[in-house]
Amino acid sequence: MNNSNCFEVLHKDKYTSARLGKLKTYHGEITTPVFMPVGTQASVKTLSPQDLKDNDVEIILGNTYHLYLRPGHNIINEMGGLHSFIGWNRPILTDSGGFQVFSHSDLRKINEDGVEFRSYIDGSRHFMTPELSIEIQESLGADIIMIFDEPVPYPSTYEYTLQSEKLTTKWAKRCKERHNKKGQLLFGIVQGGIYEDLRKKSVEEIADIEFDGYAIGGLSVGEGKEQMYRLTDYVAPLLPFDKPRYLMGVGTPDDIVRCVSMGVDMFDCVIPTRNARNGCLFTGNGKVNIRNAQYIKDENPLDPNCSCYTCKNFSLAYLRHLFASKEILSLRLNTIHNIHYYVTLMKKIRDAIAEDRMSELIDISKVG
Amino acid sequence: MNNSNCFEVLHKDKYTSARLGKLKTYHGEITTPVFMPVGTQASVKTLSPQDLKDNDVEIILGNTYHLYLRPGHNIINEMGGLHSFIGWNRPILTDSGGFQVFSHSDLRKINEDGVEFRSYIDGSRHFMTPELSIEIQESLGADIIMIFDEPVPYPSTYEYTLQSEKLTTKWAKRCKERHNKKGQLLFGIVQGGIYEDLRKKSVEEIADIEFDGYAIGGLSVGEGKEQMYRLTDYVAPLLPFDKPRYLMGVGTPDDIVRCVSMGVDMFDCVIPTRNARNGCLFTGNGKVNIRNAQYIKDENPLDPNCSCYTCKNFSLAYLRHLFASKEILSLRLNTIHNIHYYVTLMKKIRDAIAEDRMSELIDISKVG
Repeated sequence: MNNSNCFEVLHKDKYTSARLGKLKTYHGEITTPVFMPVGTQASVKTLSPQDLKDNDVEIILGNTYHLYLRPGHNIINEMGGLHSFIGWNRPILTDSGGFQVFSHSDLRKINEDGVEFRSYIDGSRHFMTPELSIEIQESLGADIIMIFDEPVPYPSTYEYTLQSEKLTTKWAKRCKERHNKKGQLLFGIVQGGIYEDLRKKSVEEIADIEFDGYAIGGLSVGEGKEQMYRLTDYVAPLLPFDKPRYLMGVGTPDDIVRCVSMGVDMFDCVIPTRNARNGCLFTGNGKVNIRNAQYIKDENPLDPNCSCYTCKNFSLAYLRHLFASKEILSLRLNTIHNIHYYVTLMKKIRDAIAEDRMSELIDISKVG
Repeated sequence: MNNSNCFEVLHKDKYTSARLGKLKTYHGEITTPVFMPVGTQASVKTLSPQDLKDNDVEIILGNTYHLYLRPGHNIINEMGGLHSFIGWNRPILTDSGGFQVFSHSDLRKINEDGVEFRSYIDGSRHFMTPELSIEIQESLGADIIMIFDEPVPYPSTYEYTLQSEKLTTKWAKRCKERHNKKGQLLFGIVQGGIYEDLRKKSVEEIADIEFDGYAIGGLSVGEGKEQMYRLTDYVAPLLPFDKPRYLMGVGTPDDIVRCVSMGVDMFDCVIPTRNARNGCLFTGNGKVNIRNAQYIKDENPLDPNCSCYTCKNFSLAYLRHLFASKEILSLRLNTIHNIHYYVTLMKKIRDAIAEDRMSELIDISKVG
């Protein structure tokens, strides 16, 4: 596979910046815009690989930070890599661990070389560097891997954000130099916090290194929807047109529709899976809180227009009963539905782009 | 359906009391000996109806006590009955609630008419009678329902056990009188504790009422394996030959093989499902505790001779990782395997009976 040709924009929407694309990876082709369910600990919570395939999931995300700590990337490598370990033969993207090292670790020390942090499992001390992050991700064998960056928290001062942006650029170069695995795509990450000039600086520096794709990092960390939209709208068009653009950690169905229209191609987020486990379900008629007493005798499916296993086989009354009774099956049936909802949303988005009617979808009520 | 012809012994093993049989129910025919996974709260924990069918489960059990308290039998009835509510179109057996009323309720008062108990959910007061138990079970619409009995705890005095046995007989008559639903089989339950003469008395009285099948109740409650085997071996041959015999709440694979050889046709137990959730898995080479560190790099399947989804797709290393990481998928993959193990065990047992070699299976090591 020639990485430089990994992505192709098949069609650009006439009235928005949305693009229909095709991304080639070692484990197959992905159509974009795409949503990647999150499989933090080598499992998309509650779902088997068969469940994911049954719901047309094309690519999932794994977390380097978690897999490094447990079971350990070397063990996964000995087991034949992450695909083999989890029984999934479609594409996988691994994040670099940057976000988790900074957000999950109580004790961490950062210097130019890397970050010292403590394991959330046993308190053991670890030192993560750009090189180690790439080494881990190569061991895991994901199709797409990410540079090790420093996402700044919100709020951060201009000065701190600038220093952090510079560090991310230095680390990005070290990642690129260290990366050595054929057939594995390496994506850069743009930082710069909420400051447009720093975002622009970051885009220029990161794009200059030349990656197979570009992520917008450090958003959806508390800055609020309007800031997130403003910065995505600002950054996306600055990124190379002919490379995939990935907005990390975003978002709600509404966020996805809006950010696709700004030119984003890839998304990941825990919202569909986490909300499902909390009983919050997405439907064409808005969100359903399955614990509500109003569903206790409701014979209707969750969403009459949905073709997922949950909607085809069970009533709201049963789903409510399972949730109220804390039955484990509840978590899986809810997750199947929400993932199906997201996958279907992405199909609708792709159809809309192909027909130059993405602008209609920006009103989410037309999506359901 | 003519209830009096619901059961047929197709073949009796030449060297033991084991029988190969066929039990006709409203939702289809069951081959016996059969194991019934327990679906306490309208769900066999972690499994969907599709999972159950994929693993050739023929019949499941529901708990009257739990379903009466939540969501309520009237609600399930309004939703079209238990089959429709849970999306399962194969046979269901419901217990009468007797065992749970006596074992789960801190506060209970028993008199000739019935039992007052408090809900484990909200502490509310309820009064269960033989008539109400039958009414609930008719509302739920199970294929096979059970009389409301008083299982005595272990140990109990001879005098108390005798009084209880008499009460169970009275209640059995009231259940038979109250039962009014065509196509729904009603099974009697034999009590009598650990006392053979009381067991014999109970068999005579219960059989005299004439039920569609007979259960041996009040065992596996702390009396120990040898007592349980002794009493099953004593009671089973006293029961009508041409009716199905159900040993309630038993047991391990070893228990099942031994009790089949004594002439038992039906079993239910939480062992395969509960053990699965605790990481204890049954294999042809004995039990595996999946949390053990020895499996951390084990690429082999849990059981190389098993054809379940779990064994066909995942390594011991992955199953151990999921369990250690408290991933919800772990509970389902483990449960699929243990249920598959039990279903396969029953198939082996039926094959063995058909070929008059049940005695060979009593050595459980030959079963795996």
